[in-house]
Amino acid sequence: MPHSPLDLAQALIRCPSVTPEEGGALDLLGRILAEAGFAVERPVFSEAGTPDIHNLYARIGTAGPCLLLAGHTDVVPPGETGAWRHEPFAGDVADGILYGRGAVDMKGGLACLLAATLDLLAARGPAFGGSIAFLITGDEEGPAVNGTVKLLTWARARGEHFDHCLLGEPTNPSRLGEMIKIGRRGSLTGKITVHGRQGHVAYPHRAENPIPGMLRLASALVAEPIDGGTAHFDASNLEFTTIDVGNAATNVIPADARAVFNIRFNEGWSAETLGAEIRRRLEVAAGNTVRYTLDLQPSNAPAFLTRPDAFVDLVAGAIEAETGLRPELSTTGGTSDARFIKDACPVVEFGLVGETMHQVDERVPVADLERLTAIYRRVLEAYFPAGASGASPSA
Amino acid sequence: MPHSPLDLAQALIRCPSVTPEEGGALDLLGRILAEAGFAVERPVFSEAGTPDIHNLYARIGTAGPCLLLAGHTDVVPPGETGAWRHEPFAGDVADGILYGRGAVDMKGGLACLLAATLDLLAARGPAFGGSIAFLITGDEEGPAVNGTVKLLTWARARGEHFDHCLLGEPTNPSRLGEMIKIGRRGSLTGKITVHGRQGHVAYPHRAENPIPGMLRLASALVAEPIDGGTAHFDASNLEFTTIDVGNAATNVIPADARAVFNIRFNEGWSAETLGAEIRRRLEVAAGNTVRYTLDLQPSNAPAFLTRPDAFVDLVAGAIEAETGLRPELSTTGGTSDARFIKDACPVVEFGLVGETMHQVDERVPVADLERLTAIYRRVLEAYFPAGASGASPSA
Repeated sequence: MPHSPLDLAQALIRCPSVTPEEGGALDLLGRILAEAGFAVERPVFSEAGTPDIHNLYARIGTAGPCLLLAGHTDVVPPGETGAWRHEPFAGDVADGILYGRGAVDMKGGLACLLAATLDLLAARGPAFGGSIAFLITGDEEGPAVNGTVKLLTWARARGEHFDHCLLGEPTNPSRLGEMIKIGRRGSLTGKITVHGRQGHVAYPHRAENPIPGMLRLASALVAEPIDGGTAHFDASNLEFTTIDVGNAATNVIPADARAVFNIRFNEGWSAETLGAEIRRRLEVAAGNTVRYTLDLQPSNAPAFLTRPDAFVDLVAGAIEAETGLRPELSTTGGTSDARFIKDACPVVEFGLVGETMHQVDERVPVADLERLTAIYRRVLEAYFPAGASGASPSA
Repeated sequence: MPHSPLDLAQALIRCPSVTPEEGGALDLLGRILAEAGFAVERPVFSEAGTPDIHNLYARIGTAGPCLLLAGHTDVVPPGETGAWRHEPFAGDVADGILYGRGAVDMKGGLACLLAATLDLLAARGPAFGGSIAFLITGDEEGPAVNGTVKLLTWARARGEHFDHCLLGEPTNPSRLGEMIKIGRRGSLTGKITVHGRQGHVAYPHRAENPIPGMLRLASALVAEPIDGGTAHFDASNLEFTTIDVGNAATNVIPADARAVFNIRFNEGWSAETLGAEIRRRLEVAAGNTVRYTLDLQPSNAPAFLTRPDAFVDLVAGAIEAETGLRPELSTTGGTSDARFIKDACPVVEFGLVGETMHQVDERVPVADLERLTAIYRRVLEAYFPAGASGASPSA
């Protein structure tokens, strides 16, 4: 049974696993892992108001260290199917490029993790010097409620312990090997409503226009940077994503104005301390004159950082050995399930080039799949040195 | 044929003349004026993209001075008919109150102008010492394109000359006699669009958020008053009526932001000088960093002022004699056709109490109709002194 990363990636892409559909992707993965000697579990998690989600946990070995390989099989919808050059769930290869939804995010990366693991086991057998666990969810692109969070809780309850985690999300902006993610910023969303009183523009003294108050509050939030950044993180950043009044009458003063902002914040803040700072800035700006309400949506993404250590060095070394590039240790970009895994063990993200993720004609060069597999193989070989037993690289 | 102001107001209310429908109101008015000796003309004006509008011009007498009595027979729609206590076009009287759409705006005021004129002619005959002209449109509540503006042009082309105008719009906030309008502020509407570049909130350097630019421009327009007011006018006032982005995604930086403002301005400005001041403020605030477009909608309502003179005194004196109140000479409130008439002759507005105008259950006490008729009668008697001939009160 050939297990090239291309074969595996094609087989996964052909499973139409748009969140929350399992689509056969976890079944396929489970069969291959079981054949390779993994003990495979398939927990399904549910919660009122959200769809049931299929997940997979598989482990080989009982000795330490245990390296966790994490990821997801679910994908975002293909969007306008007719706009694709190649059918999004066909897994076509043309001119050395594999096309399909999930090609880079992240069925391709998952195929490479799997191929590298199978290579290690083929070369070294089950006594490779530790344990490998796969923690794979079908709910990363959706609400992320019945996925990695619950899988980790479930694993902890079983007494599972992980020493390090490698998450195969796409991390490179344009070239394979450019960038490792060793942290992610947190995300906090807030909604401001300024309350006024409707009236005619010709009689402003009988009305109370909420827009000047909104200008004052919103300006106060963007006037000063949230912070100046930290050693490993950019400055926290606030963006207003919308302001809306929705009044079509040019002779009417409206009753209310609404605005939404989102902050990506670094590890200098928790959602609580940042929320308090936002409240403080708004209070100062509002004084006694602006009537408003602030609705801060509970952040499910606190900032995290895996401080550069021997494991980060090991991954970076494997990348440099294969690509000649010394990867940047980055904390930029959106959120990922690493925000949950970091509570279980140090986590590093490295995968394919993300350029086409979530887009029409998502695609990956077959050569990148092979090279990423080679990088992952180097990581496994270095993490489980031949002849060693139970030695963690950071120990 | 009894011509009490109540009879006339009821007859007019029963004509369903919602703009642009004539509804029989001008026909009725024309018949009564013709019977009284007026030469009645019924010009219909049209313009591509707007409905044809019926109008009325009637004059009695050829000698000076000529007093113009102006108004409109069209009314705003009744809205939710079921919410009215009395059917909006029935002209019901209950407990001394006349109900109906147009009761105060301004079929009631028009009925009083007509009743006072008929009284004068009954008492003094056609040689009353000057001329009276009625200039009545069916397009005041609508686009006002085929109404008073064109009627005035049409009259000028016929060689008609007016010495003063009394416009019967409702002017009193709560008691008959409180307020004459001797001017109105102008109105200028502007739309600002700030242009940015869409992107993901996690990658703000790849996007350009238009919202901070909009905050800066809008704040610059509300930061300083437009002016400090003049002897007869309040300070010019700018109100933002809406700001809209319409972006529902909290992780997306939007491409554009739009805002609309309306300025009510005094006679210190023309639409041109005020537009230039707005452009100047925006240029300063935008600097080289905010990309925006400004769309100033041509103002059809420049500010105007009829400086207090003998005619204003004459009207104020008639009001005081009937009500005991010395009316305030005001320039507040919305626009009216006086903004067009002021180019033909000095114009003063005085009519009923406007409280219920444009509302459900628009209504007027019958006593107010009688008292307003008495005031108008005093105006006519003073403007055309018995035994005098050709003497204008301001001459």
